[in-house]
Amino acid sequence: MLVLFTDFSLDDPYVGQMKAVLHAHAPSVPIIDLLHRVPDYDACAGAHLLHALADSFPPGSVFLCVVDAGVGSCRPAVAVEADGKWYVGPDNGLLSVVAGRSRQVAHWRIVWRPEALSASFHGRDLFAPVAARLAMADMPNGWLMPADGLVHELAADDLFRVIYIDHYGNAMTGIRGTSLDAAARVRAAGREFAYGRVFSEVARGEAFWYVNSCGLVEVAISCGHAARSLGLRTGMPVSVVQ
Amino acid sequence: MLVLFTDFSLDDPYVGQMKAVLHAHAPSVPIIDLLHRVPDYDACAGAHLLHALADSFPPGSVFLCVVDAGVGSCRPAVAVEADGKWYVGPDNGLLSVVAGRSRQVAHWRIVWRPEALSASFHGRDLFAPVAARLAMADMPNGWLMPADGLVHELAADDLFRVIYIDHYGNAMTGIRGTSLDAAARVRAAGREFAYGRVFSEVARGEAFWYVNSCGLVEVAISCGHAARSLGLRTGMPVSVVQ
Amino acid sequence: MLVLFTDFSLDDPYVGQMKAVLHAHAPSVPIIDLLHRVPDYDACAGAHLLHALADSFPPGSVFLCVVDAGVGSCRPAVAVEADGKWYVGPDNGLLSVVAGRSRQVAHWRIVWRPEALSASFHGRDLFAPVAARLAMADMPNGWLMPADGLVHELAADDLFRVIYIDHYGNAMTGIRGTSLDAAARVRAAGREFAYGRVFSEVARGEAFWYVNSCGLVEVAISCGHAARSLGLRTGMPVSVVQ
Repeated sequence: MLVLFTDFSLDDPYVGQMKAVLHAHAPSVPIIDLLHRVPDYDACAGAHLLHALADSFPPGSVFLCVVDAGVGSCRPAVAVEADGKWYVGPDNGLLSVVAGRSRQVAHWRIVWRPEALSASFHGRDLFAPVAARLAMADMPNGWLMPADGLVHELAADDLFRVIYIDHYGNAMTGIRGTSLDAAARVRAAGREFAYGRVFSEVARGEAFWYVNSCGLVEVAISCGHAARSLGLRTGMPVSVVQ
Repeated sequence: MLVLFTDFSLDDPYVGQMKAVLHAHAPSVPIIDLLHRVPDYDACAGAHLLHALADSFPPGSVFLCVVDAGVGSCRPAVAVEADGKWYVGPDNGLLSVVAGRSRQVAHWRIVWRPEALSASFHGRDLFAPVAARLAMADMPNGWLMPADGLVHELAADDLFRVIYIDHYGNAMTGIRGTSLDAAARVRAAGREFAYGRVFSEVARGEAFWYVNSCGLVEVAISCGHAARSLGLRTGMPVSVVQ
Repeated sequence: MLVLFTDFSLDDPYVGQMKAVLHAHAPSVPIIDLLHRVPDYDACAGAHLLHALADSFPPGSVFLCVVDAGVGSCRPAVAVEADGKWYVGPDNGLLSVVAGRSRQVAHWRIVWRPEALSASFHGRDLFAPVAARLAMADMPNGWLMPADGLVHELAADDLFRVIYIDHYGNAMTGIRGTSLDAAARVRAAGREFAYGRVFSEVARGEAFWYVNSCGLVEVAISCGHAARSLGLRTGMPVSVVQ
């Protein structure tokens, strides 16, 4: 299975162009659009979201990950095999949280270059063919070269920031639910929030934190739009009072 | 065919996570994204949209329907077989208009629970596996139990409200086109609109009502954005002067 | 391969309804969503985007193209075979830039009409079945009739306007990159921009023009939102100082 994880949005033609390439190289492999709204250019938020979301996918899945403000520069292109799943993308931190939290990790440098490599769209021209070949288990000799690790690594600890705001207005943080207990209070945007198990157990309109369905601490308002009501934005710091 | 009908939006990762589950259970069944912008939490608008949109799908289609503000509460999870199509979702009114307007209806309660059931994402954990098994015609014993009907029913009559505003700004109502004749005038937001057969027959910039391509009465402006120009919003009352 | 190119957006149910029809007629043919955010009703911007984006698709691809403000009027419905690819849509200019720039072109008028043809959704009712039959290479007798050309033609030269703004804020123009050299300066919204090869070679926050990954001249700001910062909008004139 090919799983797409980018900041391309589905509004623009970039995802479709990438899928055309994937289809040409791996016509029989199903493609899942996991997330195309990683905050623009934000490899750090993306790295934490990727770990949270990839967890439930089966071994053998190939994640094509592109959040790549440095496209066209000399940042390396890499493939990481981590606990039985593959991740393909730029070496700018995006894959480093998954790599840092996995038990078995192997790193590869992508040394193959296509005949026509655009300066600004390596997702389509470089990463998509590599991901497709991995999904087909048909990697040509000389495309990948073993590497010792990533060049750009981010801390694999919890990230005490807002990393994503969904269209309901719920604010995901980079804090894993396993790090907190129900007595903890979460602080963000000058406010403090108590724990609630789920929306339907919290009074309508009340703000609270809970562990969301991908295992992250999230600030929400029952039947409301937390980001708008509380002034939460991606990147804002979050702290915890145990 | 699996048909998805939710308020998840395509911006967030929820649809992709749900598709990964569908694919694991029913790899050979095609998936169609019908609508992921049901107005947030609005099971009533969703119920009327679902009936209008489901009509043109072939018998055997399985609709996975999730507009579920009460997720995590004790609202039942149900499957409805109506005129040869299946509908899976929460028993909160969302499936009740389809059920109420169908000639042959059978109700089932979903009694199976997965080992890991998140509190906030039954679309992925509970409804998707059930919908996939229905689409495969491979329902395990004990997953469904016959039921007498739905717990939460909405009136199956026309709904005299705006139920959806599309990105062109056209405002769909819950009134079926078969309920009105061309002499009727439609009132909304303090204005009254005459009938037009289609955009290209109305003067540029003029507001009118017509029967849209899924059979609902819709207020529009030729080459304009009716919602913005007229102040129309989802939920607003609509009346008819015959 | 069926390639979708419309102004329907993915928010609304129109793409899903069209895909259900495509699937019914051509269940084995993969479908790629190339672009559903052609500027609303703007067949001219669409025509230039279509040429730029279609270029990288393989021969045999069938493009289902719907930007159709005149739906329900008497504008013809057409299919164009151009350099080995098929394009199906309204004869309102949308297909004319591809046709005008291709070496080998054949024109067909769609004379078939479905039993139930809605007044406002020919994408679903008329164009989708025709595109599906072309993709299956199984066109029934009498559906298409050879034609001499298009009724509505646009100039196939470069278009000196902004034709698309992506979600990063980059502004695509209808000027092909092959028309300019690196010494050229591009003017838009009262400002003048110098050439940069790619984002990562331009100072953070600086506005520049470059040749984007589909071959068009594009105005951008490195790590910024050019449209918002510079006041660029679709349709604005663009000029070039060589």
